Amino acid sequence: MTPKTDSLDDFFQRNRAQIDQALANLLPEPEGPKARLNEAMGYCVLNGGKRVRPLLLLATTEALGGDLQQALPACCAVELIHAYSLVHDDLPAMDDDSLRRGKPTCHIAYDEATAILVGDGLQTLAFSALTESSGASAESVLQMVRELARASGHQGMVGGQAIDIYSEGHTLKLEELERMHLEKTGALIEASIVLGALASGRADAECIEGLRRFARAIGLAFQVRDDIIDVESDTSVLGKTAGKDAERNKPTYTSLLGLEQAKLKALQLHNEALSQLQALGLQNSRLQDLASFMIERTH
Amino acid sequence: MTPKTDSLDDFFQRNRAQIDQALANLLPEPEGPKARLNEAMGYCVLNGGKRVRPLLLLATTEALGGDLQQALPACCAVELIHAYSLVHDDLPAMDDDSLRRGKPTCHIAYDEATAILVGDGLQTLAFSALTESSGASAESVLQMVRELARASGHQGMVGGQAIDIYSEGHTLKLEELERMHLEKTGALIEASIVLGALASGRADAECIEGLRRFARAIGLAFQVRDDIIDVESDTSVLGKTAGKDAERNKPTYTSLLGLEQAKLKALQLHNEALSQLQALGLQNSRLQDLASFMIERTH
Repeated sequence: MTPKTDSLDDFFQRNRAQIDQALANLLPEPEGPKARLNEAMGYCVLNGGKRVRPLLLLATTEALGGDLQQALPACCAVELIHAYSLVHDDLPAMDDDSLRRGKPTCHIAYDEATAILVGDGLQTLAFSALTESSGASAESVLQMVRELARASGHQGMVGGQAIDIYSEGHTLKLEELERMHLEKTGALIEASIVLGALASGRADAECIEGLRRFARAIGLAFQVRDDIIDVESDTSVLGKTAGKDAERNKPTYTSLLGLEQAKLKALQLHNEALSQLQALGLQNSRLQDLASFMIERTH
Repeated sequence: MTPKTDSLDDFFQRNRAQIDQALANLLPEPEGPKARLNEAMGYCVLNGGKRVRPLLLLATTEALGGDLQQALPACCAVELIHAYSLVHDDLPAMDDDSLRRGKPTCHIAYDEATAILVGDGLQTLAFSALTESSGASAESVLQMVRELARASGHQGMVGGQAIDIYSEGHTLKLEELERMHLEKTGALIEASIVLGALASGRADAECIEGLRRFARAIGLAFQVRDDIIDVESDTSVLGKTAGKDAERNKPTYTSLLGLEQAKLKALQLHNEALSQLQALGLQNSRLQDLASFMIERTH
């Protein structure tokens, strides 16, 4: 385990700038007959996002003693998948959201056809970005492609989004809600951490399995916290329409468990995550701080 | 060059069945809470499609003496990208088509949210399929991922689709129309042929460049023929709404050049394709028959 040498804030600031620069380098110039598409791609990616997934990825690479520079293509890949999913989730036929991070969503700022194509193009760009991974072996990069695809597609994020949509207006059991979130948001968080491990070139299969258990715990905790925030915040703090889930009769942890039990659930998952890190000997790494940050955040 | 040993019809029949089987094996079972998504994915892929791109891919592998079985994952990948693009192109905010191959389009048969997710999931599945390529080296598979991403994203298919949408109601110059088609449909045809060459394990850089020139010529010719068919056919033969391009004031080869000049253009591109094959010593391969089939088809 490589010890952290600066604060979580410093780590965020330094690496967010690097991630944003790497993303900017991948995005096309807004010129020529498809200037509108290219500009919209930038609008949806370079938008002051928190970069939670790339930061988790880098924290994993750091914890295992890998080279952060070499992990940047993988950082871009997970962030691009996340960005594409938000653009498509916001569409009128899906969640029909008009605000995202305090700004008009893509189909509002541009148009619906552009938003569909932006999402499509960002997904492609994610896989393209992965193939630029330097330092890692071809086998290792191919394993990253496989992992990212498994996490993003019908077995992961897309599948979870489908369950989410189909369950609107229905009562879910707690296990069903959990499965939905493990696929919808958990799979990409897990993939981010596994990609960070693969990019380090220093993780064996056992280490990756332990990191998966850690990732699943913080992924669920992140979602429970999201539901809590949706209940407790107002729109101006949130940068997106607050209370939307309850309004649309979407099952959430808070609606199923109540606010207090949901908070207890987040705490239990946090503890589980920390004990997984301990088992890996990574309890003093940045992953611990980052897990706490994700689970204790208020917006 | 490996000589063909059966007729084009036999080649089609034998390999279409294999491609359809390989695609069916990749698709998820329609069960559980996302049964609707999974079923819709199958509906949009296992639909009696012509499989032009996988057949071009296999014809390339065959012409270079490669193993067709090992090329099947790449066949699935290009067909899945094609299938996803049709699902998204048919959406109300895009081409707003209700018929595809004589059947209701995905958002009509299911719903719009499902159609968006089906397209997203099929794109992911394409990259996932590539990673199952056996026989080829990891470097070679990674090159396939790179090639497929370049052809599918904002530099290729998605970019061409954007130009197509943004140019509706505008007059394009011939060069602009050509650029649009080279990206919208040509790039994936080119990638299919390059993936076939990579899967064979027997193509050097020079051979791949020659095949790219061949692919670009037949890709454009295929599109010119498509425009001609749209003018000459009626809906019952076409299996999709005929005359739609003219009705929506979309620029086409026939609207820019007139029907007769468009036919001459198809012929010239066909000749160029054949001379590229000759330069590669592949003039008696199945690629020649397939090029003729694509360019002379009437539906």
